[in-house]
Amino acid sequence: MTEADLGADPEADLIARRARLMGPNVPTFYRAPVEIVRGEGVWLWDASGRRYLDCYNNVAHVGHCHPHVVAAIARQAGLLATHTRYLHRGVLDYLERLMATFGHGIAQGIMVCTGSEANDVALRMAQAATGRRGIIATDATYHGNTTAVHALSARRTPVGGHPDHIRFVPAPDGLAPAGGSAAAEAQRLGAAVAAAAADLEAAGHGVAALILCPVFANEGLPAVPRGHLDAAVAAVRGAGGLVIADEVQPGFGRTGSHFWAHDRLGLAPDIVTLGKPMGNGYPVAAVLARPGPMAAFRERTGYFNTFGGNPVAAAAAAAVLDVIEAEGLMAHAARVGAETLARLQALRHPWLRQVRAEGLFFALEFRDEAGAPAGEFVARLVEAMVARGVLLNRVGAGGQILKIRPPMPFGSEHAEILARALAEALAATPPRP
Amino acid sequence: MTEADLGADPEADLIARRARLMGPNVPTFYRAPVEIVRGEGVWLWDASGRRYLDCYNNVAHVGHCHPHVVAAIARQAGLLATHTRYLHRGVLDYLERLMATFGHGIAQGIMVCTGSEANDVALRMAQAATGRRGIIATDATYHGNTTAVHALSARRTPVGGHPDHIRFVPAPDGLAPAGGSAAAEAQRLGAAVAAAAADLEAAGHGVAALILCPVFANEGLPAVPRGHLDAAVAAVRGAGGLVIADEVQPGFGRTGSHFWAHDRLGLAPDIVTLGKPMGNGYPVAAVLARPGPMAAFRERTGYFNTFGGNPVAAAAAAAVLDVIEAEGLMAHAARVGAETLARLQALRHPWLRQVRAEGLFFALEFRDEAGAPAGEFVARLVEAMVARGVLLNRVGAGGQILKIRPPMPFGSEHAEILARALAEALAATPPRP
Repeated sequence: MTEADLGADPEADLIARRARLMGPNVPTFYRAPVEIVRGEGVWLWDASGRRYLDCYNNVAHVGHCHPHVVAAIARQAGLLATHTRYLHRGVLDYLERLMATFGHGIAQGIMVCTGSEANDVALRMAQAATGRRGIIATDATYHGNTTAVHALSARRTPVGGHPDHIRFVPAPDGLAPAGGSAAAEAQRLGAAVAAAAADLEAAGHGVAALILCPVFANEGLPAVPRGHLDAAVAAVRGAGGLVIADEVQPGFGRTGSHFWAHDRLGLAPDIVTLGKPMGNGYPVAAVLARPGPMAAFRERTGYFNTFGGNPVAAAAAAAVLDVIEAEGLMAHAARVGAETLARLQALRHPWLRQVRAEGLFFALEFRDEAGAPAGEFVARLVEAMVARGVLLNRVGAGGQILKIRPPMPFGSEHAEILARALAEALAATPPRP
Repeated sequence: MTEADLGADPEADLIARRARLMGPNVPTFYRAPVEIVRGEGVWLWDASGRRYLDCYNNVAHVGHCHPHVVAAIARQAGLLATHTRYLHRGVLDYLERLMATFGHGIAQGIMVCTGSEANDVALRMAQAATGRRGIIATDATYHGNTTAVHALSARRTPVGGHPDHIRFVPAPDGLAPAGGSAAAEAQRLGAAVAAAAADLEAAGHGVAALILCPVFANEGLPAVPRGHLDAAVAAVRGAGGLVIADEVQPGFGRTGSHFWAHDRLGLAPDIVTLGKPMGNGYPVAAVLARPGPMAAFRERTGYFNTFGGNPVAAAAAAAVLDVIEAEGLMAHAARVGAETLARLQALRHPWLRQVRAEGLFFALEFRDEAGAPAGEFVARLVEAMVARGVLLNRVGAGGQILKIRPPMPFGSEHAEILARALAEALAATPPRP
C-alpha cells in the first residue's frame, strides 16, 4: 500500500471516476452516494459491509437477488438467448399467463426492454389507432427517457421546444381535497382534460390519448378515490382518444388490493405499460393492449425489438410471477402495507401534513407552518435516514414528499425498523438548517 | 394423447398463439418459422432436435450461451442488480476498459439497454451540443425502433408525417462504382449531404448531425473505401454538425481489421452508439462521446436509465470483452473472414453480381439479366438454405442481398458448410419460381 492509497477515500475516487467516464451531472442518490455491492431480500450492503434496509427500490420487486429468479435467468441464459423472430414457447407462455391477470379486453402484448420503450410504443399505438397525434399528460409526471416520452416531462424543454401535440393538465393534488371536496377535484381534472382536448382539436392534432400513472407515483401518491378519473376519461373518450395506464411503478400487486392499480380506480385503459418490477432487475418491459390498437400499431410500424421478449427475459419475468404467487406477495402487501401505514400515521411532526399509502407504497408530505412545500427539510430527512441505515427518497414538484416503496417481501419487522428510524430522524432533524 | 393432439402441428399452434397473444404482423424469419430451443457457439437447435448453423445472429457475438458470459451474468445476478444511482465499480471498470479501445477523443459513456435507446440519446446529444435540430441519415437505413429513431427509416411514415428536421441522402450503392469511379461516388455523397445541410439551414432547423453505420449494414455492405466519407463529413462539419457512428452491427471486432468499423474508414465520429453484440444477448447498449457533447446532453436532460449500466449488464459486457480478448476473436474474424470470402467468391451463378465482405460480415448481391434486384429469388434462396440447416437472411431495398453475419467463433469448418450449402442451394433454386 502506498502513501497515496492510505489517504485515498475510495468513495471520492469512485465519484471522480464517474465524472471522468460518464460525464457531469450523472444523477446519484444522496449527498454522500453509497457504494452498494450486495443485495438480498429487502437488504443492501455497501462496500464497507454496512447493511441498509431498502425502502425504495421497486425494481427488486420480489426481493434483491431472489434465488428463484436468479436461477431462472442463469438456466435460460445457458440454454438460449435469441429473439422473437424465431418461435419460442417462453414468451407465449408468459404472455398467456400475464393476460390472465387483465380484464376489460387487454389481450395482446409487445415485449420490450424498458418502461421508456413501452411508453414510447404506447404513444405511437394510440396515434396509429386514432389517426391523431395529440397526447395529454399530467404536469408533474415522468414516463421515461426516450425523446418522445421525455417530452411528457414538463420540466425539461427539448431542443427546438416542446412538441406542439402535447398538453399538460394539473395532476391530482394530494392535499387539495382538504380544501375542497374530492368530487370538486375530480370535476376540476375532468374540465382540464376537456380543455386540453379542445385545444388539441383546435390545433389540428386531435386527441390520441391521455396517459397517466394510476397511483400518480411521481406526483406523490395523491389520494385518488375510485371514480375520481371518470370525468377525465369521459372527456378523452368523447374526443375519440384512448387511455394509457402506465403501471411501471404500481403494477404487479404492489397496491395490495389489485394486481394492477388501474383496476382499483375502476379505470379500463386501452393500453397498459409495464416496466421496472417485471423481471426483478432483468431489463424487460411490455405494452399490453386491446386487439384494435395493437393491430393498428403492428400494421403501421412493423415493430421489432431485438432483446424484447427474448427467452431469458421471458424466463425472468415468469419467475417473478411464480414468486408473487408462491409467496402470496399481493396479500402480503395489503397486510404489511396496512400495518406500516398505521406505524407511519403514528409519527408526529408539526410539518407532517399527510401520510398516504397504496399497499406497499407510501408518501409522507411535509409542509411548513405557512403551507409551503418543505423540500429542503425532506432532503435533510432523507440523509438522516441514510445515516440510520434506511434507504428511501423524495418526490413531488417541491421535493416535499418522502417516497417509500420497498421490495415486496418487506415485512412487519422491517416496518418497525423503518418507523423507529423515521421517528428518530424526525426528532433529530431541525426544521431549518 | 387426444385425437386433436395427434393431428396438431406444434409449429402451427405456436404461430396461432403468437397471433392471438402478440397481434398481427409480428415479424418472424422464414416462410415456415423455426422454433429454436437451444444454442451453443455457432449452432442452434430446433424443438425437433435438428441442428442449424447460425450464419446470421450477431447478438450472440462470442457464440451462443458462451459459458464465460453466462457465468458472469449468473454470478452478478445473484449478488446485486440495482442501478447507477448508487456507486458501483462494475460499470466504471467496464467503461474504462471500453474507452481504451477508442481514439479521437471518445472518452465518456452512457449505458442504456438497447441500440434504439442509444441512438435516441445520440440524436438528442447532437442537438444539445449544437443547439440545432436537423438530422441527416441515409435513405435505406434502420437505426432502431423508438419514435425519434424510427423516423430515420424512410420507408414508414409516422402519424402526422415525417418530422421536418430529418433529411435523407442516398446511401452508397455497392454496385455503383462499377458504373462510375469510387471517387465520383464519394463526391456524389458529399454533394448530397451538403444539399441536405443547406436545406435544413433554409428550413430553420440547422444541422445537428449526420448519422450512419460505418459499414452501411442495412444498405447491404457496399464497398466503401477509406476516405469515401470525407466529403460528406466535411459538409456536415462545415454546417456545424456532428457525426454519429452507429456501431451496433459492425462493432466489437467483427470487421477483423479494426475493433470499430469507423476506424477502418478513418472516420472520427463525435458520438458512437453500441448495441446488439455488447452483452452477448443481455440487453445492454451504450452511447459514447467526446466530453463536449456528453456535457451538453447531461446538462440538458438529466438523463437516467433504470436498467442501463446495472451491475449485471456491466458484468455481461465485461465478460464479452474478456472472451474477445482471450479467444483472439478479432484476428480470428480477419483470418476466417478472408477464407470465407474466398469460398463465397468461388460460387458461380448468373445472377450473383458481387460478393462483399468486412471481416465476418458478408453480402452477396443478386441481380437478374436486366440488372433488376432479384429479391424474390434471394427470398427462395434463403428458404433453400434453411432447408439445408443454415440460417441467414437478406437485406437491401429490394431484398436482393444475402446477408451473412455469424457469431464470431465461426470457423473454417463452418465456412465450408456454408459454402457447400450455398452452392447446392444456388443450383437447386430456379431463377424464377
